[in-house]
Amino acid sequence: MSLNHPIIGIIGAGAVGCYYGGRLAQHGKNVHLLLRSEFDRVSKNGLHVKSADGDFDLYPPALQIYREVRDMPQCDLVIITLKTTANEFYQPLISPLLKEDTIVLTLQNGLGNEDQLAELFGAGRILGGIAFVCINRLEDGTIHHSDHGLIKIGEYRGKISPRLRQLAELFNTSGVKCQVIDDLARGRWEKLIWNIPFNGLGALLGLTTDKLVNNEQGLMLVRTIMGEVIKIAASCEISFSPQIIEEKVKQTLSMGAYKTSSQVDMEYFKPIEIKAIFRNPLIIGHSHGIVTPYLEMLYNQLCMVENMHRFDDGRVKLA
Amino acid sequence: MSLNHPIIGIIGAGAVGCYYGGRLAQHGKNVHLLLRSEFDRVSKNGLHVKSADGDFDLYPPALQIYREVRDMPQCDLVIITLKTTANEFYQPLISPLLKEDTIVLTLQNGLGNEDQLAELFGAGRILGGIAFVCINRLEDGTIHHSDHGLIKIGEYRGKISPRLRQLAELFNTSGVKCQVIDDLARGRWEKLIWNIPFNGLGALLGLTTDKLVNNEQGLMLVRTIMGEVIKIAASCEISFSPQIIEEKVKQTLSMGAYKTSSQVDMEYFKPIEIKAIFRNPLIIGHSHGIVTPYLEMLYNQLCMVENMHRFDDGRVKLA
Repeated sequence: MSLNHPIIGIIGAGAVGCYYGGRLAQHGKNVHLLLRSEFDRVSKNGLHVKSADGDFDLYPPALQIYREVRDMPQCDLVIITLKTTANEFYQPLISPLLKEDTIVLTLQNGLGNEDQLAELFGAGRILGGIAFVCINRLEDGTIHHSDHGLIKIGEYRGKISPRLRQLAELFNTSGVKCQVIDDLARGRWEKLIWNIPFNGLGALLGLTTDKLVNNEQGLMLVRTIMGEVIKIAASCEISFSPQIIEEKVKQTLSMGAYKTSSQVDMEYFKPIEIKAIFRNPLIIGHSHGIVTPYLEMLYNQLCMVENMHRFDDGRVKLA
Repeated sequence: MSLNHPIIGIIGAGAVGCYYGGRLAQHGKNVHLLLRSEFDRVSKNGLHVKSADGDFDLYPPALQIYREVRDMPQCDLVIITLKTTANEFYQPLISPLLKEDTIVLTLQNGLGNEDQLAELFGAGRILGGIAFVCINRLEDGTIHHSDHGLIKIGEYRGKISPRLRQLAELFNTSGVKCQVIDDLARGRWEKLIWNIPFNGLGALLGLTTDKLVNNEQGLMLVRTIMGEVIKIAASCEISFSPQIIEEKVKQTLSMGAYKTSSQVDMEYFKPIEIKAIFRNPLIIGHSHGIVTPYLEMLYNQLCMVENMHRFDDGRVKLA
């Protein structure tokens, strides 16, 4: 394994994958992006990023893009930015890229991704990262990075390692702030404290983050749901001070009108990341006997709205 | 007071008012309908009712319609079918119609309507009625009565009275099934056990009643919310057997795809009857220390979605 001049594969080139992959490529890293729906557009017009940290544009062949995994090289580092609703494709998308010492970093949302990857590809190579970032893809394909950008990365099994520090260095030398953390699970729960209320209510009610915190009803719902998530985390022996609720609310107030990925998914009739963000935490809570009626109601409501967007044969309706 | 050949005023000629008022007029009763947005259409084309109990059509001048209350005669019986969101207009809409012995019957949804009317016009004249009926107004103005139709009526203060029986007779001789009940409050709570989950979730998720009971998530939400409403009723010393939940679910399954008035309101960006159906019961529960997280979440979500439909100056956005 070499993280000095690694061959980097990005699997799942949505807004997040294009942004982070694009930043690495912009800084001379050897990046290989798997694109699907966007392949033709990027192939023809390039990748355009409008970013709070500075705009940039990349064009093939300097930007190495692929339509099929089989055409990609084997990698030293695979970064997974798939939507978790596509996790069933881990095996065919990732295994062709793996050498014995390839590192796999998932930047996906929610709980359970590292577990699934470890089961498929071995726990030793798995790292997890939590992206605190506001990114959307605009109608014209432009990636719009409106705020934040920090990635916190940790070992799936074990504490801070030399390879973890090397990986952080890779990002930090590519215009992406990256911190190493010694407790990945804690990082995941911290992100969930935010994701569960904002992705959930945002998708369900069609409201951007600012509209969830600028009125008493929204604040009440957000705070109550955050409190429930904290209770579930505590049942996993990961404790947060209740103060974190007001910190997260304050951060959100400073973010302006942000549309979470789940709200975007809902608008475009795409599947929401229900399992990773909502169901897996809820199941853990249940297994520990934690009572979380708000989260339970939110989860059930999302399932119902998601079902509305499907045809009887299970296909998702397109906008 | 005479309920033998009463002069009947109908205030609030939405779908419910047009249906019941129309039935009374169809059967030769002396009915006077206040219309607003529909006045011109009904004036020109008449009132058309498609009903599970038999279609009928009525035309002016046999159908006595008014645009302004001041043009209406004083009444022996005033039937109120206003949306509860218009209760602030009780005084100007109703007082011109009142004689000393005029009876006022509200067929509105939710809690608090009789109290408000009693305060304005005296408790002695107030009756309440609960309409178990599926009625919508179609795009072309036709009233579509798809199922049920029973009205249960009771005295606001007191038990079954001769005038209550006379009033029931008036409906029963006009093609409208009507039962007298000796406990109006109990009737109201029974209706709320259905209205709160189906109007609330239907409006919020944009789902007709069938879609709320044909999947496990919907059934779980409906049953849990019904259970909470039953707990609040019990705190008012009105007890229901838990069996009522399955009875209501079964009834709903037999109704087919029904769009509650709140779902219709939401679709047309009209105010939902949040106060009467959701807020007033919730406040009563709170005042008795009853914990109802699902109802609380539902109420807060509805407030938020309703706010989305308003401009900053409070006006409601039109579709």
